[in-house]
Amino acid sequence: MEEKLLNPLDVMQECAQLALLGKGYTKTNPVVGAIVANQSEILSRGWHMAYGGPHAEVNAIDSCPVSTEGLDLYVTLEPCSHSGKTPPCVEKIVKSGIRRVFIGVVDPNPLVAGKGVEYLKNHGVEVYVGYMEDLCASIIEDFVKFITEKKPYYTFKTAQTLDGKIASSTGDSKWISSEASRTYTHYMRAVSDAILVGVNTVIADDPELNVRMVKSDRDPFKIVLDPKGRMPLDRKLVENSADKLIYVTCAESRITEALRNKGADVITLGGDGSLDLNVLSDELVERSILNVMIEGGGTTAGKFFDAGLVDKVNIFIAMMIMGGSVSSVGGNGVENVAQAYKLKEVQSKHFEGDLMISGKITDYKTSVLDLTEKVRGCCACGCGKDK
Amino acid sequence: MEEKLLNPLDVMQECAQLALLGKGYTKTNPVVGAIVANQSEILSRGWHMAYGGPHAEVNAIDSCPVSTEGLDLYVTLEPCSHSGKTPPCVEKIVKSGIRRVFIGVVDPNPLVAGKGVEYLKNHGVEVYVGYMEDLCASIIEDFVKFITEKKPYYTFKTAQTLDGKIASSTGDSKWISSEASRTYTHYMRAVSDAILVGVNTVIADDPELNVRMVKSDRDPFKIVLDPKGRMPLDRKLVENSADKLIYVTCAESRITEALRNKGADVITLGGDGSLDLNVLSDELVERSILNVMIEGGGTTAGKFFDAGLVDKVNIFIAMMIMGGSVSSVGGNGVENVAQAYKLKEVQSKHFEGDLMISGKITDYKTSVLDLTEKVRGCCACGCGKDK
Ligand SMILES: NC(=O)c1ccc[n+]([C@@H]2O[C@H](COP(=O)([O-])OP(=O)(O)OC[C@H]3O[C@@H](n4cnc5c(N)ncnc54)[C@H](OP(=O)(O)O)[C@@H]3O)[C@@H](O)[C@H]2O)c1
Ligand SMILES: NC(=O)c1ccc[n+]([C@@H]2O[C@H](COP(=O)([O-])OP(=O)(O)OC[C@H]3O[C@@H](n4cnc5c(N)ncnc54)[C@H](OP(=O)(O)O)[C@@H]3O)[C@@H](O)[C@H]2O)c1
Repeated sequence: MEEKLLNPLDVMQECAQLALLGKGYTKTNPVVGAIVANQSEILSRGWHMAYGGPHAEVNAIDSCPVSTEGLDLYVTLEPCSHSGKTPPCVEKIVKSGIRRVFIGVVDPNPLVAGKGVEYLKNHGVEVYVGYMEDLCASIIEDFVKFITEKKPYYTFKTAQTLDGKIASSTGDSKWISSEASRTYTHYMRAVSDAILVGVNTVIADDPELNVRMVKSDRDPFKIVLDPKGRMPLDRKLVENSADKLIYVTCAESRITEALRNKGADVITLGGDGSLDLNVLSDELVERSILNVMIEGGGTTAGKFFDAGLVDKVNIFIAMMIMGGSVSSVGGNGVENVAQAYKLKEVQSKHFEGDLMISGKITDYKTSVLDLTEKVRGCCACGCGKDK
Repeated sequence: MEEKLLNPLDVMQECAQLALLGKGYTKTNPVVGAIVANQSEILSRGWHMAYGGPHAEVNAIDSCPVSTEGLDLYVTLEPCSHSGKTPPCVEKIVKSGIRRVFIGVVDPNPLVAGKGVEYLKNHGVEVYVGYMEDLCASIIEDFVKFITEKKPYYTFKTAQTLDGKIASSTGDSKWISSEASRTYTHYMRAVSDAILVGVNTVIADDPELNVRMVKSDRDPFKIVLDPKGRMPLDRKLVENSADKLIYVTCAESRITEALRNKGADVITLGGDGSLDLNVLSDELVERSILNVMIEGGGTTAGKFFDAGLVDKVNIFIAMMIMGGSVSSVGGNGVENVAQAYKLKEVQSKHFEGDLMISGKITDYKTSVLDLTEKVRGCCACGCGKDK
């Protein structure tokens, strides 16, 4: 039987899928996926499963059922060359006898980008940089924002009618979106570090903000913005999961004390009734919360847009008109059309009758692609990709 | 050469396209398209081109280059059997010697539905009823609403951001939608009897509401709702096309007098600052305005939704977020999600970067399809459609 050759692009695509299995678990580390293969067959797979645990490359190498001597390693992100919670991956790779390493993108930190590649090459490993770069960069945009700006990555999610309403005049919002949309929302929650809402949503809907509709062994943190201490204590977020609650307010009060007693995390930001979302961002980063899904309401979403903090949007649109004034994005809004937040890389998907439009507002990919382009150039495989 | 047979469904589809050429010109008549053919070839085409002018069947028969004796006639709507502005079409058909008549749907008026078919059959013409019924019914929904309810058919059109905003906080709205979207809007204007806006839109945007971006030899009427007489007289609608202006207000004022002098049509509805949209509908029907496009702003659209008057929506969505509070549909809105206006027969199209979602809220098709189903049954062609 004729042996089929593996296509490195296909293998790298699978690495990216493996990487995503770590979403929600890697905290301040990026998600990474890796595969060990010979020229015709995938032999083992690995991904970074948890902060502090072994890196993807190590998992792939350690689970390979045969000797890794002379084999190929595919990895979405440049292997690390420095010691952190675990020893440098490049040493492990050299020791394992891996002959060729295919890398999606290089380290997004400009100070160390290419260092891992250099080490490997200096130790006789063939290195090919820049495979499925776009995909490999897009799965770590949150991490890139964190290391370059030390801010969480904010995704705004809403379920609205065609006219942009999230509740009726009487406050009814159950259910605007289809069950399929809501199930997908629960997946999005499962891969977020935290869900954030304004106090009016807690008052009106008493939401649980947990992961129910998909299987998951973790619940995200639930952040409530309540500057003036209006949140009632009989809410599900308090009664069922105070240990996961992060309560954000201006000043200490009867409520902050009660919440602390129940095990909630309380952040007091000072201020005169408005919350500084940049200071809040610092507080969240300190807690290793890097991936936040803003679930509403419109006032809260508007304040995040006004602050220029939203990175991505996921809008579920139900094919109906509701009228009234409870809007998905409030705030002051932009001054003119030219300043509106334009979506890039727009995607649309159908969820039963709903349409989901998603897109990015910020771009944390191009810098990584540029770095990768710079480091590329040691390609000896004749694929024509070297510069 | 072997002769190819015409497929009656294809021919009827072309009839419907012909019918649409009359949109905007037929006033209180429905649009109708007709074709004369033999078994293998289309010989002539006709459509109802203008109110008072000859009907589609007559145009098709009169323009046939050969004798119509023994030929087939296809027509989207049952030929009339009563004298109106023109003599009954069924007499013309019988006289022309047409052998077979294929009809899309029967007359939507339950009192006369089937009367034309009966006349033709009694005079020896073979009649086949119900071809492309769905299409033939959908092109006359506005007419069906008119004859069954004596109300105009209202289409709501808006150009909004993803979050449902039609202007920024400072009132900027140029341009939210792409040029392609705006061009299509001008086509929609060209086939409407009138465009309707609220006074705030006239104050903020000084719109022309005419047909510029597509070729058209007619401009629709422009209806402005201004209950309290706040419209400045230096607006383009007044200065450039007062003869096409229909100004709706509560009471006589300095403005109504000035507008009448300029040739505008003024409707005073009385009332305490709010306008009764059902009374307005009666006034419009009296003026043979049956097809109205509501172009905003949100307050006006909201009032039409609140009154349950909107039949169809066309929403152009630009892939951006604007925030703020100038919403595409305001009003009181529905009380709960279950009462929201659900879109039926949803279609989506792309116009450059924009997405256009259109759909129907009311249904003026099913009744016509039911009538057609009842009248069907004299089919002798062996096509299996007879009941
Ligand atoms: N369909 C959906 O996807 C969805 C999702 C969520 C909510 N909803 C609906 O949305 C409605 C609630 O929306 P909403 O806009 O009224 O309220 P909201 O956004 O839930 O809460 C707004 C309040 O949170 C506080 N807040 C938020 N961000 C702040 C900031 N940066 N600085 C200071 N305070 C901040 C303020 O409290 P103070 O007023 O005390 O200053 C503000 O009034 C409910 O009817 C709910 O059912 C729908
Ligand atoms: N992007 C788009 O497609 C688009 C289209 C049109 C407009 N716009 C924007 O929308 C904004 C204006 O919207 P808007 O909601 O403020 O105003 P609007 O709908 O243009 O005008 C509202 C006013 O019209 C009168 N009115 C309308 N319907 C009425 C009724 N049934 N009964 C009584 N009065 C009625 C009322 O006047 P009184 O207040 O005197 O009672 C009402 O306040 C502007 O910024 C404009 O640029 C955008």
